[in-house]
Amino acid sequence: MADELKRLIRDIPDFPKPGILFRDITPLLSDHAGFRLVVNTLKQRYEGRKIDKIAAIESRGFLFGTPLGYQLGVGVVPMRKPGKLPYKTIRESYALEYGEAALEIHKDAVRPGDQVLIMDDLLATGGTASAAVSLVEKLGGEVVEVCFVIELAGLNGRSRIEGVPVFSLVSYD
Amino acid sequence: MADELKRLIRDIPDFPKPGILFRDITPLLSDHAGFRLVVNTLKQRYEGRKIDKIAAIESRGFLFGTPLGYQLGVGVVPMRKPGKLPYKTIRESYALEYGEAALEIHKDAVRPGDQVLIMDDLLATGGTASAAVSLVEKLGGEVVEVCFVIELAGLNGRSRIEGVPVFSLVSYD
Repeated sequence: MADELKRLIRDIPDFPKPGILFRDITPLLSDHAGFRLVVNTLKQRYEGRKIDKIAAIESRGFLFGTPLGYQLGVGVVPMRKPGKLPYKTIRESYALEYGEAALEIHKDAVRPGDQVLIMDDLLATGGTASAAVSLVEKLGGEVVEVCFVIELAGLNGRSRIEGVPVFSLVSYD
Repeated sequence: MADELKRLIRDIPDFPKPGILFRDITPLLSDHAGFRLVVNTLKQRYEGRKIDKIAAIESRGFLFGTPLGYQLGVGVVPMRKPGKLPYKTIRESYALEYGEAALEIHKDAVRPGDQVLIMDDLLATGGTASAAVSLVEKLGGEVVEVCFVIELAGLNGRSRIEGVPVFSLVSYD
């Protein structure tokens, strides 16, 4: 299955900056069979588990989080960059290679005790994922798993979210 | 149906700036029954039509475009703000109230003759929608319809995309 998906992931050298090899999921998204394989595999993994909300990370996490939520019968809550969510929010900042970024979630998106599946397209250094876990936990939610389509295993992002289950469909060294 | 959806759309006054009444779709997204109603209604509208691609506009268009694509068995192509798409792109700029914005699409996202459904969450003044239609047509695609969850009818965004079919689930004066 991973090989089938890898054929639909395009390598773009030097994007967004020199020395970075970008894994482009747009051919996978555009190929209905490939996209269906991703959503169905995740559906099989999570159906029967108690999941109250899927927290999808802006913006490529939206692409996979909402079809999965639809399939599982679970509502979706967005986690976004600062200033995008209109209602009351909490914010978590995290370090980037150069500078800092932050993620926000609506205060009413997760209730205490909610079982939350976090969804993003790609795990790199784990900064965004770590902030996402913190936001869910600050609202009293419990993270069922953090789920990615792609994992860049060589960057060891899992070490930033130790203690939380992590799953990825496709892994690159 | 529109009333049921309106109960799940939250009004946020003065966002993102004073005088703007923002229509917040996050309660709708978080409510599985409401979200399902949106996707199923759109599925019923478009199934049986010839649609080769759904072009979803960053980023709230992603939330509805991908579950609809999954349901219809159609691949999804993203239209994004400048600099986000990693492969070869074309760009269309458009005027905002103050300043200018632009939208990009991958050159290989649409092929000549493709029947394309454009999906976004909200039609306001129509600038983004107009740019999206131009991008699809520049690549040789034909716009089947431009589909929105919400239309702010008082802003008359439809006038910016005359000649192209427009559909919205919920309309506000």
